[in-house]
Amino acid sequence: MKYQFSDRVQGLKPSAIREILKNSSAPGIIPLSAGNPAPDAFPAEDIRRISAELLEHTPIEALQYGVTEGYTPLREHLRNYMKQKHNVGTENDDILITSGAQQVMDLLTKTLLNEGDTVLCEAPSFIGSLNTFRSYRAKLRGIPMEEDGIDTEALEQALEQEKNIKYLYTIPNFQNPSGITMSLPKRKKVYELCKAHNVIILEDNPYGDLRFAGEDLPSIKSFDTEGIVVYAGSFSKVISPGMRVGYAIGPKEVIQKMVVCKQGEDVHSNMWAQIVCHRFMTECGYEAHLDRLREIYRRKSGVLLTAMEHHFRPLISWSKFEGGLFAWCTLPEDIDMLEFVKAGTEKKVCVVPGTAFLTDESEPCSSFRINFSTPTDEQLQEGIEILGKLAKEMAT
Amino acid sequence: MKYQFSDRVQGLKPSAIREILKNSSAPGIIPLSAGNPAPDAFPAEDIRRISAELLEHTPIEALQYGVTEGYTPLREHLRNYMKQKHNVGTENDDILITSGAQQVMDLLTKTLLNEGDTVLCEAPSFIGSLNTFRSYRAKLRGIPMEEDGIDTEALEQALEQEKNIKYLYTIPNFQNPSGITMSLPKRKKVYELCKAHNVIILEDNPYGDLRFAGEDLPSIKSFDTEGIVVYAGSFSKVISPGMRVGYAIGPKEVIQKMVVCKQGEDVHSNMWAQIVCHRFMTECGYEAHLDRLREIYRRKSGVLLTAMEHHFRPLISWSKFEGGLFAWCTLPEDIDMLEFVKAGTEKKVCVVPGTAFLTDESEPCSSFRINFSTPTDEQLQEGIEILGKLAKEMAT
Repeated sequence: MKYQFSDRVQGLKPSAIREILKNSSAPGIIPLSAGNPAPDAFPAEDIRRISAELLEHTPIEALQYGVTEGYTPLREHLRNYMKQKHNVGTENDDILITSGAQQVMDLLTKTLLNEGDTVLCEAPSFIGSLNTFRSYRAKLRGIPMEEDGIDTEALEQALEQEKNIKYLYTIPNFQNPSGITMSLPKRKKVYELCKAHNVIILEDNPYGDLRFAGEDLPSIKSFDTEGIVVYAGSFSKVISPGMRVGYAIGPKEVIQKMVVCKQGEDVHSNMWAQIVCHRFMTECGYEAHLDRLREIYRRKSGVLLTAMEHHFRPLISWSKFEGGLFAWCTLPEDIDMLEFVKAGTEKKVCVVPGTAFLTDESEPCSSFRINFSTPTDEQLQEGIEILGKLAKEMAT
Repeated sequence: MKYQFSDRVQGLKPSAIREILKNSSAPGIIPLSAGNPAPDAFPAEDIRRISAELLEHTPIEALQYGVTEGYTPLREHLRNYMKQKHNVGTENDDILITSGAQQVMDLLTKTLLNEGDTVLCEAPSFIGSLNTFRSYRAKLRGIPMEEDGIDTEALEQALEQEKNIKYLYTIPNFQNPSGITMSLPKRKKVYELCKAHNVIILEDNPYGDLRFAGEDLPSIKSFDTEGIVVYAGSFSKVISPGMRVGYAIGPKEVIQKMVVCKQGEDVHSNMWAQIVCHRFMTECGYEAHLDRLREIYRRKSGVLLTAMEHHFRPLISWSKFEGGLFAWCTLPEDIDMLEFVKAGTEKKVCVVPGTAFLTDESEPCSSFRINFSTPTDEQLQEGIEILGKLAKEMAT
């Protein structure tokens, strides 16, 4: 049979980057290209205990159908926790538990976007989200990043130029891939600009709890008196990605539509995982756990920074990062980035070419992304040394 | 802010049926309207043991990111199991683990359907799937059901009349809501007709293992030499719906596109649940477990049948059902079905009005659906008695 696919799927091109990354899990490879939490970051012992208890005492609750909106005690706890700790959520907001935060991007796009409508996003931005937007045939317009976050002048220009803008997608904390954190004045400016143009903000915050330097900044959602921000939260980096639990906090009217869409996608999220997240948050010293995670990543990022200081200077530079899992490195002009990444893979060190994170992969880019949570300390040191030598070889 | 929703979401009307069902979980209600597996059908003890072992010995595998296609040992086992037991799957097929079978409907629709394209479905059919198709703005064309399954003459007519038919959606075994099983000759005829018209078949089989009378029939997918059938399997009725694990077996080319779509929706399905399903299938006497389930539902359906014989005759009739979870009951012409269902709810007995399962809810329908897996024996007996009395009161 000759299959006839939908327009939206035909438009999803296999990425050139995938070819480069294909070998990143082969044996002997140093994986600086992943985004997995560090193995010692998982609260495995607590999850084991909670899981045993709930399957002993309330197995049917964990195994039976649940409601689409999510496990009620988890929703209630998150509502209070996010309000008290982060001033996120108002009387007019509601909360939806999703199958990972990726589903927030999917459901909001499904709820708001017609084919051809525009999504504004940071350039570079997280490839997973960009691909979700593409799957709904969004027109992506990238707004350049500066050291303190999105270029708000360029954002204003885009807001004035583009038609049918449905939302701005931003990762304000330790952005993937750039590691950049948006400054407080820019957060306020972004909120004011979008409010003035009647454009929703999709604020994705998977790494916010992983700050290991500097001071916490309020989320854009915390300014949201007008109901224009949908906040995407995730347990993937702070409890476990394999559980696939995330959540959206947004205006009731929007969340209600997202609930209908979720019902058609997967009915509800895995119940066991939702209950484990709830009990872990409420019974296991959640703040101390977050402190422990920050300590793990502070230490690991230190290993990376020390290695980069030794082996990357002066050829390769990197953006300042105060949290998260990634470093964004930039090559001098005389080294072709894609050639560099390919040559690195041949030397068994995998990083992600920066073009993967652009709205148009064919645009020029001299940066690449390094992850420091997945590799061991030794892999990090060895990988950076190999990349540093490679840059020196390739520099003319 | 005034929210502007996408066309597809604006088209999703809140259903009149929801209003009727709103009270179905209130205290004191006899819930004959649900579709939940019976509480004693869950292999809770095995799941508890497997879960404890895997979180003890391989916690990182259960908690870390996985691949979109699904947990490899589960995919491999299912491939062999479905081939050996049901002759489902060929060299040209691949398998994708999904977040419940509902996601198979979603991903296949996303992969094949442009707005306005046609989906053929049985009339009546499962409301959850119909709503998924609607969320992609499918044009639904219902094909009437006969005692031995879909009306193949009407199907042939529709295949000739409709434009841009992307697939036929069918539940051949103990269909939800009608309970009807498609005969072997009709299965062959449906396959031949769709093959001749180059139309894919989406074969949804959540209840196939729950046969408690009659003989098993081969699935339509087992005839599939041409790669025109996508088979949707589910663990919701045989292990646990709260885990949200289902799977698609279909042509590689189609599955590959579905994988890309799934990546944008939820990255991958819950790892813990996938591992539990694999180990339960391979280590816990799966066939004996299925026998035990059939015995549970054989007994429960017997309670329902006895009660209906006593209290429904001669006013209310029902379709023959040899498995599954539902009975499809039909009122005499002089009783208005929606009035009857409403009056039942006031007497605290909830059933689902048949109109909920039509492509057009405003069409006339004198049937309603009863579920016998969720209520207790006492609730079943009491509920049927109340409904029987109600019919006698309402008959003129």
